Amino acid sequence: MTRFTVDEANIFLSAAFKGRGAQNQVVTMEPGFAVMRLAADETHLRPGGYISGPTQMSLADSVAYMAIMTLTGLEPMTVTSNLNINFLRPCIGAAVIAEGRILKMGQALAVIEVHIRAEGAEKASSHAIVTYALPRKDA
Amino acid sequence: MTRFTVDEANIFLSAAFKGRGAQNQVVTMEPGFAVMRLAADETHLRPGGYISGPTQMSLADSVAYMAIMTLTGLEPMTVTSNLNINFLRPCIGAAVIAEGRILKMGQALAVIEVHIRAEGAEKASSHAIVTYALPRKDA
Amino acid sequence: MTRFTVDEANIFLSAAFKGRGAQNQVVTMEPGFAVMRLAADETHLRPGGYISGPTQMSLADSVAYMAIMTLTGLEPMTVTSNLNINFLRPCIGAAVIAEGRILKMGQALAVIEVHIRAEGAEKASSHAIVTYALPRKDA
Amino acid sequence: MTRFTVDEANIFLSAAFKGRGAQNQVVTMEPGFAVMRLAADETHLRPGGYISGPTQMSLADSVAYMAIMTLTGLEPMTVTSNLNINFLRPCIGAAVIAEGRILKMGQALAVIEVHIRAEGAEKASSHAIVTYALPRKDA
Repeated sequence: MTRFTVDEANIFLSAAFKGRGAQNQVVTMEPGFAVMRLAADETHLRPGGYISGPTQMSLADSVAYMAIMTLTGLEPMTVTSNLNINFLRPCIGAAVIAEGRILKMGQALAVIEVHIRAEGAEKASSHAIVTYALPRKDA
Repeated sequence: MTRFTVDEANIFLSAAFKGRGAQNQVVTMEPGFAVMRLAADETHLRPGGYISGPTQMSLADSVAYMAIMTLTGLEPMTVTSNLNINFLRPCIGAAVIAEGRILKMGQALAVIEVHIRAEGAEKASSHAIVTYALPRKDA
Repeated sequence: MTRFTVDEANIFLSAAFKGRGAQNQVVTMEPGFAVMRLAADETHLRPGGYISGPTQMSLADSVAYMAIMTLTGLEPMTVTSNLNINFLRPCIGAAVIAEGRILKMGQALAVIEVHIRAEGAEKASSHAIVTYALPRKDA
Repeated sequence: MTRFTVDEANIFLSAAFKGRGAQNQVVTMEPGFAVMRLAADETHLRPGGYISGPTQMSLADSVAYMAIMTLTGLEPMTVTSNLNINFLRPCIGAAVIAEGRILKMGQALAVIEVHIRAEGAEKASSHAIVTYALPRKDA
């Protein structure tokens, strides 16, 4: 069972971003797996009307964090150590879906695979691997 | 000599972001090398008062693009294909400096190394390698 | 249908490596997907008896190349431009299996996801994203 | 002062690789910085006579490890967690030089930047960022 629910995740995000990012919602929290949905507005677009790269990177970072919290519960000291993203094809749509799945949950590091696609699209627009450093659990 | 000046770069950024990102300024454009400065406000902070990871990723992406345009001039069809960032230490300060330097300028790809640090800090808070796909030059 | 068969792939590898790497076999070639198997010997081990990181990196690079050739046929001018690998857990066993699957087949770049595991193991020991630059198709 | 000398490093490598890799020599060990030199033979070449990608990846991994040991001394439990390499241009020559420099030495992770070039070449043939997980120091 997830240790951090969809509702808890959305309250956390809303507080962390002080009301900004209301279009940014967690929609699934299962053990080792999280899904977020971003309703895009013009601040997320790049010239040409595509969802921008930074929007996708930010979403990849967030959904990876959520995937970890399905296993750890709320853990504010968890921080990103590496993010590697490949942009595969244009991301065009009114909303973006990001799925994060844990590849490894170690003592010091968690590694999460993220697929991002425009809502309704079959193929991913980007693919990221995100590594988070976990706080030390001291006895 | 640079093929895209500091003034041209700032006009381009301002138009691309429609007035958002006024705190985001290009300060140096030399052949193969660009520097940007971001005056941070609360939208750039994460809990704890640090400059957030997504802020640094977005800045890395932008300064890499600027570094390319020092060599190509304005080239809107250039798009990010890969970004790999390592977060090295907390980024704490009122402004962030990002330096982008071309490692490779090929026919299909440009690879740029980016160092990001809090203004006044000696050590980098993050280090990124950004790859852009260049538009084909057809005869 | 694959444009490069298992037999063609093994003949190619054997010629490219001049007899070295006989333990390195292609076992599956389907459109967009390739599997290789390496029978490990002591040259592939690191202290502790694990399959070494460089062995896994080399295998990731090869299986990604094979996955491309399922779509392109033999294409010697295709070269690796980026390889990003995360080591997830120790790789212990007499043989290693690498699966490469195309994420994107573009005009200039192909991006391949690779999972590597010890034969018989359920979980991946490493996960790689490999980008190859494709030769230009001129008219 | 380095905590692991050039001589110690070469004895360690020779033992770890049981005599293979005699062409692989550590030539500089300074605090936070290491240089290795590989005298290439045909096993390091790919079709076309270039130094192969796996040869460069393996060297990047090794020199990063050496750079860490300049600060930690011999530490066999240090293991690679991520390696990201960009191939910038062909590596052609009788020997390859790899320089590793510590970007971050944390409690759990070390991040090392590696430049690889053909001996005598001015420009790097590849550039890697390597992350090692450090063993926990328990009280």
